[in-house]
Amino acid sequence: MQLGMIGLGRMGANMVRRLQAKGQDCVVYDLDASAVEKLVAEGAAGAESMADLVAQLTPPRAIWLMLPAAITGQVARELAGLMERGDVVIDGGNSFYRDAVDLAAELAPQGIEVIDTGTSGGVWGLERGYCLMIGGPKGAVERLDPIFAALAPGDETGQAHDPAIGTAPLGYLHCGPTGAGHFVKMVHNGIEYGVMAAYAEGLNVLAAANDGAASREADAETSPLSNPEYYRFDIDLAAVTEVWRHSSVIGSWLLDLTAQALKHEPKLECFAGHVSDSGEGRWTVQAAVETGVPVPVLSSALFSRFASRGEDEFANKVLSAMRYAFGGHLEKTGAQ
Amino acid sequence: MQLGMIGLGRMGANMVRRLQAKGQDCVVYDLDASAVEKLVAEGAAGAESMADLVAQLTPPRAIWLMLPAAITGQVARELAGLMERGDVVIDGGNSFYRDAVDLAAELAPQGIEVIDTGTSGGVWGLERGYCLMIGGPKGAVERLDPIFAALAPGDETGQAHDPAIGTAPLGYLHCGPTGAGHFVKMVHNGIEYGVMAAYAEGLNVLAAANDGAASREADAETSPLSNPEYYRFDIDLAAVTEVWRHSSVIGSWLLDLTAQALKHEPKLECFAGHVSDSGEGRWTVQAAVETGVPVPVLSSALFSRFASRGEDEFANKVLSAMRYAFGGHLEKTGAQ
Amino acid sequence: MQLGMIGLGRMGANMVRRLQAKGQDCVVYDLDASAVEKLVAEGAAGAESMADLVAQLTPPRAIWLMLPAAITGQVARELAGLMERGDVVIDGGNSFYRDAVDLAAELAPQGIEVIDTGTSGGVWGLERGYCLMIGGPKGAVERLDPIFAALAPGDETGQAHDPAIGTAPLGYLHCGPTGAGHFVKMVHNGIEYGVMAAYAEGLNVLAAANDGAASREADAETSPLSNPEYYRFDIDLAAVTEVWRHSSVIGSWLLDLTAQALKHEPKLECFAGHVSDSGEGRWTVQAAVETGVPVPVLSSALFSRFASRGEDEFANKVLSAMRYAFGGHLEKTGAQ
Amino acid sequence: MQLGMIGLGRMGANMVRRLQAKGQDCVVYDLDASAVEKLVAEGAAGAESMADLVAQLTPPRAIWLMLPAAITGQVARELAGLMERGDVVIDGGNSFYRDAVDLAAELAPQGIEVIDTGTSGGVWGLERGYCLMIGGPKGAVERLDPIFAALAPGDETGQAHDPAIGTAPLGYLHCGPTGAGHFVKMVHNGIEYGVMAAYAEGLNVLAAANDGAASREADAETSPLSNPEYYRFDIDLAAVTEVWRHSSVIGSWLLDLTAQALKHEPKLECFAGHVSDSGEGRWTVQAAVETGVPVPVLSSALFSRFASRGEDEFANKVLSAMRYAFGGHLEKTGAQ
Repeated sequence: MQLGMIGLGRMGANMVRRLQAKGQDCVVYDLDASAVEKLVAEGAAGAESMADLVAQLTPPRAIWLMLPAAITGQVARELAGLMERGDVVIDGGNSFYRDAVDLAAELAPQGIEVIDTGTSGGVWGLERGYCLMIGGPKGAVERLDPIFAALAPGDETGQAHDPAIGTAPLGYLHCGPTGAGHFVKMVHNGIEYGVMAAYAEGLNVLAAANDGAASREADAETSPLSNPEYYRFDIDLAAVTEVWRHSSVIGSWLLDLTAQALKHEPKLECFAGHVSDSGEGRWTVQAAVETGVPVPVLSSALFSRFASRGEDEFANKVLSAMRYAFGGHLEKTGAQ
Repeated sequence: MQLGMIGLGRMGANMVRRLQAKGQDCVVYDLDASAVEKLVAEGAAGAESMADLVAQLTPPRAIWLMLPAAITGQVARELAGLMERGDVVIDGGNSFYRDAVDLAAELAPQGIEVIDTGTSGGVWGLERGYCLMIGGPKGAVERLDPIFAALAPGDETGQAHDPAIGTAPLGYLHCGPTGAGHFVKMVHNGIEYGVMAAYAEGLNVLAAANDGAASREADAETSPLSNPEYYRFDIDLAAVTEVWRHSSVIGSWLLDLTAQALKHEPKLECFAGHVSDSGEGRWTVQAAVETGVPVPVLSSALFSRFASRGEDEFANKVLSAMRYAFGGHLEKTGAQ
Repeated sequence: MQLGMIGLGRMGANMVRRLQAKGQDCVVYDLDASAVEKLVAEGAAGAESMADLVAQLTPPRAIWLMLPAAITGQVARELAGLMERGDVVIDGGNSFYRDAVDLAAELAPQGIEVIDTGTSGGVWGLERGYCLMIGGPKGAVERLDPIFAALAPGDETGQAHDPAIGTAPLGYLHCGPTGAGHFVKMVHNGIEYGVMAAYAEGLNVLAAANDGAASREADAETSPLSNPEYYRFDIDLAAVTEVWRHSSVIGSWLLDLTAQALKHEPKLECFAGHVSDSGEGRWTVQAAVETGVPVPVLSSALFSRFASRGEDEFANKVLSAMRYAFGGHLEKTGAQ
Repeated sequence: MQLGMIGLGRMGANMVRRLQAKGQDCVVYDLDASAVEKLVAEGAAGAESMADLVAQLTPPRAIWLMLPAAITGQVARELAGLMERGDVVIDGGNSFYRDAVDLAAELAPQGIEVIDTGTSGGVWGLERGYCLMIGGPKGAVERLDPIFAALAPGDETGQAHDPAIGTAPLGYLHCGPTGAGHFVKMVHNGIEYGVMAAYAEGLNVLAAANDGAASREADAETSPLSNPEYYRFDIDLAAVTEVWRHSSVIGSWLLDLTAQALKHEPKLECFAGHVSDSGEGRWTVQAAVETGVPVPVLSSALFSRFASRGEDEFANKVLSAMRYAFGGHLEKTGAQ
């Protein structure tokens, strides 16, 4: 089946590779011509412009956008102006689900349908397949089944797939009307932030397990370590994360990756710890707030990322100012 | 190798079964004679008392306690009175790691060594093997290697094990001196609470994705749903958790179980939502507080469990009393 | 000065009373005719409809809306259709600040200005005065200074007011352009939720200070109280909140009210603990999320309110389902 | 009445001054002789050693310790060796309440009683009086009533005090047996952390209210500010905190101090934002965890302080390592 792909970054390029490898035909475009060339060298057809891309595809066309959320809408609108009734635009990026809902409403009069596909799998998707959460009109989604099936991991059991139980066991799912795919992906990433933070916080506790071996200053500004004799464990974090991978309750793919990272660099010194967030974690918390669903864990994970980038600084200055005002407490300089 | 087992509940009984199946010899004891009989019928040797258990074991003995944390210490002390220099007591339950440290110090003059083993795997351990986090003196831990190896999942790759890289890939790990095993298991469970809560909160957001379809009252006491048009997704949670299992970033064993539970009962109506906590989550937060490690996610997960059991009630009454006092707000009766 | 008031609920009616008492002239309207009659009996002029209200006011008119957020916009738009160039609409309710921004843009072509006034003080405002956070065009805000001055507490020191230092010490403040008033009030209420929760949680800890006196069950599902001997304090919460009012660091008006409530009813048994939230707490968290500001305390306070109304139920069922799936844990019935 | 005071730091010295001013006789001691001299110059009696201090006091003696928590126990024990049956030791510092319970049990055989007094008021106590939360045996507490009354703010109404309603309205309270005073003070400070954080987070949101005026980078790693047009308020934080002081719901003494600090230095640039915690916040969370009371707000406030000192660094590195591992995400350098 034929698919146009716009956006050949980390994710988009690998998706093209997987599609080609599974026998699908991709026509690719990116502002960066060298990214196009690279994939042409690997067998894809290249386009020189969006118009060229549209021209190379046989109607009804399907064009997949794999772009930063901030520019997806603009590109989609421009693209729609070049497309025809019956064509489909697929937003596979980490866009806000409402943008897909709005875009679908906007393009409906032109007869262009919008599918939003949440795509999980990261840089590993090329090899493992991508987990796809799909929103959109039933007909369009069914027509593109070969594309989704090729991108998804597929049947890992080696057994024939029973269509009666749906495609979820194959790693792709039609979640509902346009917007549903990104909504589910949004929550997926919200959960991801929480799960990641759970491991990160736990490992930080393990990293402090030997604090009793070090001396700690005692003054009115610093709480002394109350039971140093119980904090004398020099834990090998790489070994611990490895053992947890084997039949513990917290085994997961994220743990697999963490164990590998710690084996490679036990102190993770090549990282500074400024943790980005790319939108879905925020949107998940906002959806929860709007619908009145308590998400203390997901929001704590999000706020820790904000704080990791220094966004708590003014609040902390307010605290120091208060402490100075009521107690004459001067800030301690240096580390705790 | 010979092992005594005291405590034949859910966990203890299955561990005996796995050990026997792997060719180890178990002598078992429990206050509940029928639990002993059952395992005797399956090939274990049974004891009628702790003294009898000790008598049936050849020195140097190793006796594993698989008991509620609240009674482990008392049983261990009683047992130690019956044992001899060179014997080993193993606490495999969910005990506080400091109890193991204290017990080891207390039994040292008698020449009895204490090993603490954090045991993860739940009811699935019989089949999948148990993930073991072990603390204790090197000699004793090495002597008991056949027991740990039999309980652990072992080599899942089918390849010969390279002893140079340690036992972590086999699912058991000597983490450090006595106490280290339970410390690592404590943090394991702290993480478990956080990971579980991340999924639970996310699924709760998905369950609210259709809130826009229902009408919501608008009055001064209730915030209206601001964008009902964006909350019209009727998400199939069983299908979503299933699709996430396949190459998504949040794939995990806990997700496998969740997908299964939702497939079985999509609304989870057989549960009331009163969530217990058995100690390690609390101790993890306390260790973090003592060592000054921020654990907002792990603590939020813990506090949500407390609240699920109604422990937030008085605080909520205080809030309602304040609202009434400053604003004349009466509580709304019935659901939100 | 003349002011129209629409919405004679708890807040609106008392504001009219305070304005009349300070020599301002109010024309009042409410869908509930009896509310109008009541204030007419106290000296205000009554209107039978919005059109009548507009007719009774001399241009340039100023009409204050004190309505639930959910209907304010609709009423304002209807009202604007009856007003003239140069008139001012004031939204004094707990509306979303963006609604004021949008409304101002929408009414600008008609020459009608929008002022948004965050109003704090609750049922006590009549006597103590209202703290006013005002957004809007400079000219309109200055013209209405007599209204704001009459509503605000005014000079509590008895000394003449120095206009050079602005009106903040008098209890009202022009915070910026339209929207700024509600933005500041939004954050005010976000803080309010956090402060209230801090007291509520602390008092809940004090209420548990005698837990060691009661027995607590010990089983594998329940963590035993580890140090009952340290939880044998029968604290008099009414006395404690009273003593804190006198020169402690946490003295506040909310504490004053709390002490009073506890004196009146030490167990707060007339409250069920279902705590409403009326919008600003949510919007504060959403603004924080959008701008990347960490607000773990404000969001925790909000989520506790959601949970107090049972909105955590499905998440808790998911946790119970997971616990059952991996560990065979059955929920405990009854209280913890 | 005669009182010995050991520990002449910020708090201790001012308490001596207040006592002397109210006609009580203080004998003072500190390792730092110059601190003693200073108070001697102001009329107190000075001691050259603890033994000298004891010698100068007439039995039954009362000696108040105002020392860092880390050394209070040791000094108290040393002191007790110099005292006689019937004497009283008062711990007025920020000690762990259990230390007072233990100390009382330990000194009971010698007939020395222990009173623990939580003392709030900071550097303002000299002038405003200290809020005192007192634990200890009834007889000893009653005997020392003149001391407590002199330290406390006393009757602020100018009316005669009605002994029937107790001393709480005078700013001191006998909360229960030894330990109860520090328990109540512990929770007081736990609440204080939460209240402070509520203001600090809210002010941080206000400080971001103008974020829409600045441009923000859009790339796959950074979530764009979704609605810049709604974040164009340049809020005067000093004026806002001032206006809130006047009849708003969040008026408090901490707000008074914050308004003053912001007036003095609007950006709080003299503070770095490394916020200490001196023990009670930690103990409050630990008590809550032990008794199963949810304290999401109090713990969030505590963990934010830990993070302000960089204690979240390793956790953040783990997050960055995970993001790199699954998505190839490199950390952004520089500010967000």
